[in-house]
Amino acid sequence: MRILITGAAGFLGSHLCDHLLNDGHEIIGMDNFITGSPDNIAHLADNEKFSFYKRDVSNYIFVPGNVDAILHFASPASPNPQSKSGYFNLPIQTMKAGALGTHNCLGVARSHNSKFLLASTSEIYGDPEVHPQAETYPGNVDPVGTRAVYDEAKRFAESLTMAYHRFHNVNTSIVRIFNTYGPRMDLEDGRALPNLLKQALLGQPLTVYGDGSQTRSFCFVDDLVDGIIKLLYSKEHFPVNIGNPVEMTILQFAEAINRITENKAGITFVDARSARDPQRRRPDITRAKTILDWEPRVDLEEGIRRTIPFFKQKLGLA
Amino acid sequence: MRILITGAAGFLGSHLCDHLLNDGHEIIGMDNFITGSPDNIAHLADNEKFSFYKRDVSNYIFVPGNVDAILHFASPASPNPQSKSGYFNLPIQTMKAGALGTHNCLGVARSHNSKFLLASTSEIYGDPEVHPQAETYPGNVDPVGTRAVYDEAKRFAESLTMAYHRFHNVNTSIVRIFNTYGPRMDLEDGRALPNLLKQALLGQPLTVYGDGSQTRSFCFVDDLVDGIIKLLYSKEHFPVNIGNPVEMTILQFAEAINRITENKAGITFVDARSARDPQRRRPDITRAKTILDWEPRVDLEEGIRRTIPFFKQKLGLA
Repeated sequence: MRILITGAAGFLGSHLCDHLLNDGHEIIGMDNFITGSPDNIAHLADNEKFSFYKRDVSNYIFVPGNVDAILHFASPASPNPQSKSGYFNLPIQTMKAGALGTHNCLGVARSHNSKFLLASTSEIYGDPEVHPQAETYPGNVDPVGTRAVYDEAKRFAESLTMAYHRFHNVNTSIVRIFNTYGPRMDLEDGRALPNLLKQALLGQPLTVYGDGSQTRSFCFVDDLVDGIIKLLYSKEHFPVNIGNPVEMTILQFAEAINRITENKAGITFVDARSARDPQRRRPDITRAKTILDWEPRVDLEEGIRRTIPFFKQKLGLA
Repeated sequence: MRILITGAAGFLGSHLCDHLLNDGHEIIGMDNFITGSPDNIAHLADNEKFSFYKRDVSNYIFVPGNVDAILHFASPASPNPQSKSGYFNLPIQTMKAGALGTHNCLGVARSHNSKFLLASTSEIYGDPEVHPQAETYPGNVDPVGTRAVYDEAKRFAESLTMAYHRFHNVNTSIVRIFNTYGPRMDLEDGRALPNLLKQALLGQPLTVYGDGSQTRSFCFVDDLVDGIIKLLYSKEHFPVNIGNPVEMTILQFAEAINRITENKAGITFVDARSARDPQRRRPDITRAKTILDWEPRVDLEEGIRRTIPFFKQKLGLA
């Protein structure tokens, strides 16, 4: 297949490029580098099956030749208010990537008769009141809250995707991506995993907010990409959660990180940052298991070990 | 003020034109007539303070001269699956009006330093699980449901409006409009009031779905417009519900309609149409009362009496 990937220079987009090239496909990558990095695709520069266009998908897309599939992964995604590339600091670009970007991609998919796969997110569930979250849960998002720029952009993108499927018969799929980690992730994205792993590798005490009882579920990137590619080949049009349902408290997680990295500096507890951070988020992956025969295979210890070399390189410790 | 109104030829847009012209303002109306009608603004043709441009706000807006305020009221809004101008049959135009249209309007507001007022809707609450709905209720909307094209478009529009306010300091307001009726409403919009009033005026038995215990709250258009204009002059940036909190069952309402119109044909009960129709929707108008000193003044009987001449004319009974 000839596959267009928007956000190709991002964390997830670049892994999709790698895996799909490895499967023998031709990849057209697009990215405007607002949050993606040329470093993530530098190793593909000599690959004859990979071409790259620096474009803002929210403005316009021109794709030379035919396109069999489009994976729309372009969007700021970091919830870190301090990060220049987080969606708090790129609110309008984030909303445009979800609305105008999705609209542009769906237009190309319609005219090329291509498959369209939307990268959605567990953030569409907001601060959920049921656990775990199944795809039927409508979510708990305040449309005028500060986080809403990302959440509502993705909710809109899902609705528009379904509208093109229902009204224009475009072959669409929607993946709702839960917390993912691995090489090429943004060390500054503000989430628990990179924060704690960075501290551990630097031999610092790990910062845990509140009492550490809030929970997270972390999926290793190879598992996620495996699920997305299975969805790409499927005929499923309704959203499918892809994530790791193994839930642990942030405190358990910090202890595991210290053990795996042999960090002796312990843990520091500080005041809870913000009531806006979801207290719990865990995928119900029944649909992924049933429809795609998918479930994660990489456990936390193995995933962290495979992530450490990238972190060490970024931290100048390699 | 010089005020741009999108959707100026619609039910609400045209009343806003009338009231704001009456207050001495200059109005620039825009509409693409997908759902609006030239009939609604025909009486303004000779008004020197009114100009009109046939435009699709989702494509592009050019406004000659300065603009002090923009009221974005362009959108399909009828939930009737049988209506050609309902959002079920215009799903993509509906999503574009909410996303691209709002984005275009906010761009003009930013460049002209104008006030921006977004017409949002009680539909952002979806099928609510709390009654009445206050503005803090995050709603119960399935982003991939068939109704979502309208609901998510408006949720997105709210988020984008807040983003322009927070990030670009645009002076914005958001009105969440509940069920409204009055002259120039779409007789085919599929909602209970026009359906029942039409049947009553034609001397037919009124059709009530299920046992008629589902409730509605109806606001007369003059009350609604009064609230919107108060909001336009205010400095309130967070959403404000405008609607009539007097709740009645559909059965009570049908009986009132038969009484007011002196229809002797009674009521016919038929099977409930669809579980997707919200069972209850009622505004909590505490914020409108507190912030805008607004509450509805026209009771149902008076509102219906003021609406009947328009219905009779449309039905060829005048």
